[in-house]
Amino acid sequence: MSELSVNGRARIVELPEIREDERGAMAVAVCGEQVPFVVRRSFIIFDVPAGITRGKHAHHRCEQFLICMAGALDLEATDANGTASFQLLGPTQGLYVPTLTWLSIKPAEAGTVVLVLASDDYDKADYIRDWPSFEALIAGGCR
Amino acid sequence: MSELSVNGRARIVELPEIREDERGAMAVAVCGEQVPFVVRRSFIIFDVPAGITRGKHAHHRCEQFLICMAGALDLEATDANGTASFQLLGPTQGLYVPTLTWLSIKPAEAGTVVLVLASDDYDKADYIRDWPSFEALIAGGCR
Repeated sequence: MSELSVNGRARIVELPEIREDERGAMAVAVCGEQVPFVVRRSFIIFDVPAGITRGKHAHHRCEQFLICMAGALDLEATDANGTASFQLLGPTQGLYVPTLTWLSIKPAEAGTVVLVLASDDYDKADYIRDWPSFEALIAGGCR
Repeated sequence: MSELSVNGRARIVELPEIREDERGAMAVAVCGEQVPFVVRRSFIIFDVPAGITRGKHAHHRCEQFLICMAGALDLEATDANGTASFQLLGPTQGLYVPTLTWLSIKPAEAGTVVLVLASDDYDKADYIRDWPSFEALIAGGCR
């Protein structure tokens, strides 16, 4: 977990939108402001067939920040306090996902493109892919 | 300029594409690998009207990495060695833009969405927005 981290649950973060003139719009995600970690890795999820749910895992250490770049995205996040549902509809908001949060994502439109900013390099051992193990972890207060 | 930086000119970087199964695709941009800096700031450019060119500035210190998330993007980069043109057609490639590189971008399709990963926080003084000043800088070998 990065030193910029804050505790808390998965939550929608509004990104400042700048429309200075007729040349279009910009949404901004600054590390230490909207994104509570320094980004070590980015990945983009695309070409997801209709009806498919992805994610379905949690992380011990890696925090994530999801932005829906095109289309729309339904999300469900479960932590020790319960389950919350979210929807991301465009590039002016993100979902911050803390550690020990089981996340599922499902595109709500064809052509949905999702950016994931991550606080850590890829580490297979950081993934919790088994729901009973995750339940046991959060039940044990291992936050 | 970040300690991960490498010298060189603006260049297309292919992003590894992962298609493990029928659940869609993922493109990966790791800091220190495809992206030669740690990301301090991200911004998204969208809703750019047809025919509009954006950018048209260079940076003293900030490096950038552009990914076209939706649509298609034409780019033109000028440094001390001349001008090069590029096109980004989807999320499996990026354009690395070093310091002292004058960049112009122009969406080639309606609905184009562009992610910019940046090595530095926003600093107004870091922008070179005046072409004669930029020409003088690169002519002086101030790279």
